[in-house]
Amino acid sequence: MNSKMTARKVIRFDAEGRHEIEDVVIREAPLTIYLNGEEFVTLLYTPEWAEMLAIGFLRSEGLIRNFAEIQSLRFDEEQGIVFVETADNFVAGKLYGKRTVTSGCGKGTVFYHVLDALKGNPVTAESKIGAEEIRQMMRQVQERAELFRQTGGIHSAALGDGKDLLYFCEDIGRHNAVDKLIGFCLRDGIDLRDKVLLTSGRVSSEILVKTAKAGIPFLVSRSAPTTLSIELAEVLGI
Amino acid sequence: MNSKMTARKVIRFDAEGRHEIEDVVIREAPLTIYLNGEEFVTLLYTPEWAEMLAIGFLRSEGLIRNFAEIQSLRFDEEQGIVFVETADNFVAGKLYGKRTVTSGCGKGTVFYHVLDALKGNPVTAESKIGAEEIRQMMRQVQERAELFRQTGGIHSAALGDGKDLLYFCEDIGRHNAVDKLIGFCLRDGIDLRDKVLLTSGRVSSEILVKTAKAGIPFLVSRSAPTTLSIELAEVLGI
Repeated sequence: MNSKMTARKVIRFDAEGRHEIEDVVIREAPLTIYLNGEEFVTLLYTPEWAEMLAIGFLRSEGLIRNFAEIQSLRFDEEQGIVFVETADNFVAGKLYGKRTVTSGCGKGTVFYHVLDALKGNPVTAESKIGAEEIRQMMRQVQERAELFRQTGGIHSAALGDGKDLLYFCEDIGRHNAVDKLIGFCLRDGIDLRDKVLLTSGRVSSEILVKTAKAGIPFLVSRSAPTTLSIELAEVLGI
Repeated sequence: MNSKMTARKVIRFDAEGRHEIEDVVIREAPLTIYLNGEEFVTLLYTPEWAEMLAIGFLRSEGLIRNFAEIQSLRFDEEQGIVFVETADNFVAGKLYGKRTVTSGCGKGTVFYHVLDALKGNPVTAESKIGAEEIRQMMRQVQERAELFRQTGGIHSAALGDGKDLLYFCEDIGRHNAVDKLIGFCLRDGIDLRDKVLLTSGRVSSEILVKTAKAGIPFLVSRSAPTTLSIELAEVLGI
């Protein structure tokens, strides 16, 4: 057991009838991000690497560009709040107030603006990755994805350099797993132009856009892509 | 092939090397909902049952309560827009303007308000469902989930009455699949107090809240629940 999972008594029905057993369940909790003293957003996440999720999320949403902009970063574990202060102390509400965005898989008209901006600035790969290198990295992902095997309910995101994994993050949400990873890369100043993002989740257009915004040229998944994400990948150089 | 999928040439690497083959890819497209003449939200969805998704989404978000409130409903397939006009012609921006909600799996502080409201009004089941009935319905879901087998990239949501499936919807997004289903139930005036929602997706707190808001007392999934969704189910009577 760790912060990401917990034991629960469950009732199992099988061919022999009804059994009370103990099973492992993935943890989900709210995490609220305060930005420069203002409540900004509440995410539902698997409690691990809260600070990295917060800065990765802010990076993915375009609110910060690099780690130097962050003046302070504090996680209040008991309340489930990450407090972020930036150098220029801007108020996010002014940038964000107009969005009408959904909880599920939707984006407001922002979606089109983002695409227009990205199309003007495609991702440039500084290297090539071969099929055998992808297989090698995916094997490492599978070895580490122990929590998925135990609970069946978690997504993973890993950053590879063509040989090995540099980071490995897990979360109930596939977007969160990627944002945690981006948070680590931002904190550690990782050059992403020759790196590979390996995700367990389906590749929808939103994951593609997130990858492009981070400037990662290679995206690998064991799950299916959509038509829109394939088209975007072709346009954006991923 | 149908509106939900398309054929794509892909390159497959296996033990014998590199092959160009044709594969089936799930379609994803933007769908914009206009409410009373105002652009409201853009969802990313699998193009089928656009009108049902629109009204199910509006129901899940609490903007409409029943189908009689809808004065007109029109889908412009070429533009990917559903136009919804309601009887009282309200402007959604006034209700929605203050939300800071994320694309991934997050909700703003709205999340807590929703929970408080739901706790005061738990779901009441008008019947019981046995293990064998659940197995019978799940077998029917699996028979119909052909698209998942073909593409590996789609979620399904079905409504069962304890014996048979009344509706079956598929979408790239597990939230969308449920909202399409809720749209059908709203249109057809289905009493949900003795029905079962069967979903292919993981049961996060957001799916639990959506089920509770629709007043469906039974939720069945082949995927894992989270700690938070189990706690919510206990509180909300699901």
